[in-house]
Amino acid sequence: MTTTTPMSETALDTVADLAAQLRVDSIRSSTSAGSGHPTSSMSAADLLAVLITRHLRYDWDKPRSPVNDHLIFSKGHASPLLYAVFKAVGVVSEQELMTGYRRFGQRLEGHPTPILPWVDVATGSLGQGLPDGVGVALAGKYLEQRPYRVWVLCGDSELAEGSIWEALDKASYYQLSNLIAMVDVNRLGQRGQTDLGWNVDAYARRVEAFGARALIIDGHDLAAIDTALATAEDHTASGQPTVIVAKTIKGRGFSEVEDRPDWHGRPFPPDMAQRAITELGGVRNRVLRGPRPAPVPATTGAVPDHTAQPTKADATAPHYTVGDKVATRKAYGDALVALGARDPLVVALDGEVSNSTYAREFASAYPQRYFEMFIAEQQLVAAATGLAVRGYRSFASTFAAFWTRAYDFIRMGAISGVDLRLVGSHAGVEIGADGPSQMALEDLAMIRAVHGSTVLYPSDATSTAALVDAMATTGGISYLRTTRGAYPVLYPDGQTFPVGGAKLLRASDQDAVTLIGAGVTLHACLHAADILHEQGISARVIDCYSIKPIDTASLTAAANATSGRIVIAEDHHPEGGLGSAVTDALLAAGQSNLTITHLAVRGIPGSGTSTELLAWAGIDADHITTAARQLISRTEHHT
Amino acid sequence: MTTTTPMSETALDTVADLAAQLRVDSIRSSTSAGSGHPTSSMSAADLLAVLITRHLRYDWDKPRSPVNDHLIFSKGHASPLLYAVFKAVGVVSEQELMTGYRRFGQRLEGHPTPILPWVDVATGSLGQGLPDGVGVALAGKYLEQRPYRVWVLCGDSELAEGSIWEALDKASYYQLSNLIAMVDVNRLGQRGQTDLGWNVDAYARRVEAFGARALIIDGHDLAAIDTALATAEDHTASGQPTVIVAKTIKGRGFSEVEDRPDWHGRPFPPDMAQRAITELGGVRNRVLRGPRPAPVPATTGAVPDHTAQPTKADATAPHYTVGDKVATRKAYGDALVALGARDPLVVALDGEVSNSTYAREFASAYPQRYFEMFIAEQQLVAAATGLAVRGYRSFASTFAAFWTRAYDFIRMGAISGVDLRLVGSHAGVEIGADGPSQMALEDLAMIRAVHGSTVLYPSDATSTAALVDAMATTGGISYLRTTRGAYPVLYPDGQTFPVGGAKLLRASDQDAVTLIGAGVTLHACLHAADILHEQGISARVIDCYSIKPIDTASLTAAANATSGRIVIAEDHHPEGGLGSAVTDALLAAGQSNLTITHLAVRGIPGSGTSTELLAWAGIDADHITTAARQLISRTEHHT
Repeated sequence: MTTTTPMSETALDTVADLAAQLRVDSIRSSTSAGSGHPTSSMSAADLLAVLITRHLRYDWDKPRSPVNDHLIFSKGHASPLLYAVFKAVGVVSEQELMTGYRRFGQRLEGHPTPILPWVDVATGSLGQGLPDGVGVALAGKYLEQRPYRVWVLCGDSELAEGSIWEALDKASYYQLSNLIAMVDVNRLGQRGQTDLGWNVDAYARRVEAFGARALIIDGHDLAAIDTALATAEDHTASGQPTVIVAKTIKGRGFSEVEDRPDWHGRPFPPDMAQRAITELGGVRNRVLRGPRPAPVPATTGAVPDHTAQPTKADATAPHYTVGDKVATRKAYGDALVALGARDPLVVALDGEVSNSTYAREFASAYPQRYFEMFIAEQQLVAAATGLAVRGYRSFASTFAAFWTRAYDFIRMGAISGVDLRLVGSHAGVEIGADGPSQMALEDLAMIRAVHGSTVLYPSDATSTAALVDAMATTGGISYLRTTRGAYPVLYPDGQTFPVGGAKLLRASDQDAVTLIGAGVTLHACLHAADILHEQGISARVIDCYSIKPIDTASLTAAANATSGRIVIAEDHHPEGGLGSAVTDALLAAGQSNLTITHLAVRGIPGSGTSTELLAWAGIDADHITTAARQLISRTEHHT
Repeated sequence: MTTTTPMSETALDTVADLAAQLRVDSIRSSTSAGSGHPTSSMSAADLLAVLITRHLRYDWDKPRSPVNDHLIFSKGHASPLLYAVFKAVGVVSEQELMTGYRRFGQRLEGHPTPILPWVDVATGSLGQGLPDGVGVALAGKYLEQRPYRVWVLCGDSELAEGSIWEALDKASYYQLSNLIAMVDVNRLGQRGQTDLGWNVDAYARRVEAFGARALIIDGHDLAAIDTALATAEDHTASGQPTVIVAKTIKGRGFSEVEDRPDWHGRPFPPDMAQRAITELGGVRNRVLRGPRPAPVPATTGAVPDHTAQPTKADATAPHYTVGDKVATRKAYGDALVALGARDPLVVALDGEVSNSTYAREFASAYPQRYFEMFIAEQQLVAAATGLAVRGYRSFASTFAAFWTRAYDFIRMGAISGVDLRLVGSHAGVEIGADGPSQMALEDLAMIRAVHGSTVLYPSDATSTAALVDAMATTGGISYLRTTRGAYPVLYPDGQTFPVGGAKLLRASDQDAVTLIGAGVTLHACLHAADILHEQGISARVIDCYSIKPIDTASLTAAANATSGRIVIAEDHHPEGGLGSAVTDALLAAGQSNLTITHLAVRGIPGSGTSTELLAWAGIDADHITTAARQLISRTEHHT
């Protein structure tokens, strides 16, 4: 159902004038800041002028309204245009535009971030806004069942990113007719012509082949834009996302720079800006708003409430018997199902390995809240991000090694301030025969380096289940590393595993050395402590299940109790993982007199059994035992 | 020009028998190992049987022959099929197949790696083999100008990875008619049906939209396969890559598992394997080889010689004057041009930001050795990998933040054992106004965690140029982090900057504290030392330009000279970067009594000037000065 009638002459004049204002303001803000991308904004100004006056259903006074449409600038460098839009709808003042853009401590950042209430996700790393939009559209269609639409402005350059095609593939698979991408085909990238230039037919063919409806238009013909946007809106029946392929001119509106390759990412000098503003008809301060969302009857879907918290673990929570062998990845599946039972906002996604990660348990229990992302890890994170934007608590899983595929999306998720719960199974050499391509040996370092992240690596099923619960209420990027093999349950029911904690599994007044492990190496540490005990050496053992934040108090207490002698063993490369987390914490706490032996995977593994490979890497009980003995023997000489 | 005639009945029988052998051997090896992917091998056995007997031009006794075709298993989990092929051509013995597959210390790993001389690149992380093949094909067509073809076996599941579409986009842009992908559309992924199932028309439309020629065939019709492969070979004129979309049946040849969803990645139990072998006609030990490459006239392109080393730096090397302000990214461009002048094997690639990274200097000087990868960082690394396979010394550059997009490819590059030279510009908060999406704050941690990597972060133009030279002969993954802004040249000509070294810029017998920086923070450390000097405090300053490997001797000497007092400042998040590298090295060297203050970027930055943001992060000269004074004051109490 088309909701708009063709534009009258008057309306056309108004929109044209608004488009000129958006261009002028894009020029003014970037020139005032001395940096920014005016020409990339000017090419898309007509698209946005029509969109915001005639199609975007948005209550600008209530950016959190659940019925608002969503507007995502996938080409985040067109921030001058976005901020000009915000001025045009009256939510950003002329003063803020002219003194806040790209300035320290201000919210009009170089690329948009959700520090602004009308921005859903941070963009600026190209090829991410559309994938994020897929997640928002999934929420709208399948969970909230609300009629909002997700409008995404894409650049043409970013269509070279594979992630765009992962997004369109999923958008068509999930029949996201509520997703509308507008591609600003201005032909020019940062350093010259794009791959496809103005070949809009080629873009349309690609888009259509990926299952979307393509509409090719002149991106400066206001009536054509209006018709295309109306067509896109009238699309529910087809079940297809729409991609508007708009042929545009970079720098449109200022003859000195139009279609010129040397003006990417450069503000105009003041005199030039003045000429541009003159050519565009001068400064305007028009404020006007487009359609508001219709109030909708009570939704039939889950209503996300950002403030809701899952209820406490109850009888549905999994229980494990100490000594039974249970893989922590299995415990993840169990715990997620239990969490899902008491928290309707929990959703799960997986990258076509749900039978390995055990996300399939959730998929079976709550098929309406599970989204299969197939083998597309970037889209997996992006969909989780978009769902998080709508208030869902998304858990996304794949093999731990393959999170490396999505690192840029994880990094950007942190900048977006969304809560993402990532679960990586099959970590380290422990996986055995599949070989190094499937072994995560960099994941702890990777996630630790993300701002505000939480890194968890439990050793048994009980602690895993508890930490899955904890993740539900953990902000930012949280990561749970699970293990392929089944190892003994260590903890009975009822123990608590706070994020940032650790468990002291062996301790006495005679401890000569501290052994620190997590995941599979914790079991090796326990075994080593048994061997050492038989040899008359008392070893303290710490289960460092929370790698970030880390339990500094337990670490310093252990260091003090064992004359600074610490052996750390981890199934990870030596850099940036458990070892670094422990030493960083101890040094930051001012601990001195440390003598640390750090056992980690220092070569490129091959295939083998878990036992063979843990031994090869030097992180099994025997190596931990030897390291502990050597450490004691070495330090006894000078204590 | 089609080089093959249609298969005779006899030939058809032979190929069919070989295909059965490949299936039987795929079953036998995986059953013997107790793990592996027989059904994923069986679907593609007919494709491979025709390919190796009739089309692949390969001298199996000379795997390094430069005229050989290339065969890449992008679906690396079909390793049983690849190893069965190796047995069929007589380079892997029956015994090795049956006792070596997936066993510890053996070369027939769970997923193929170049430990085998007939394997170009490690695969197993899906969606990488085809992008890598693009790099090999680029070398063949543009650099070596040799007629070899690059044959890539893809799975259908992996076509959900965006990287596949980045690859096809570049393959068509560069008219790589020497690249032939065979997609084994067996419909079933690990956990169920793929996104598109057996919709081969949809795959063909996508492939064609991305500029490749699509040939849809029944992947079990040997004559049809033969015709398709011949058609693909006869394709030079069109300048298009070919993608053969082969509809196949997973587990083909064994009725118990054919097209059954539950048999992904599972070997058959011995009794079942026996039934399968019986159904397939029993064990065979046929050895036969297909066409050999024609000897070719002397190539007109650069002949890669893996043993060649670049000549020493000469008069073309850039020279900088101490005190002049030069951005290290500019020095990268200068040095790469100079290196390219004396080393014909040096090639450069960039992700559409060559005017920012200064790779454009090389592109201008040697357009034949420069490959624009547009905004597709995964393909950027993959192309560099493929070029490295052919012996070229590839330097790839983009903004440092965007290397996070390609982390999985970098990780797999390390497993492939290729030498990759990655350069990341615009690192850290130093970049200023563009905001956090463009600021690399995780890159040092990310690359440090890669096995065998080298991480370099020079502070001035002279050292940058020297390190670019050093990278040319550095094995493995090497990474150079460059800075956006221009800072004073610190070093005169003639100084050496060995990988693994450091420079002592300030040192005296009275040093009370050591200041360690790299890149932009080194300048802050020098400034802080000046301020401290005015306050009567002598500070040692270390330019830690080589973060991995790191100069442990300089660090321990400094720690000893300054009572263990060290201030480290880095433009990076606190985890896994310079600070971790320094403390890891000191602790590993047994250094105790350390009191370290680690200044790093602990929040999410916004926009601002470099000066504002370095101050906000607490990593500028003032903060270093304060930290040094506090460290001295704190530790004086108990020394």
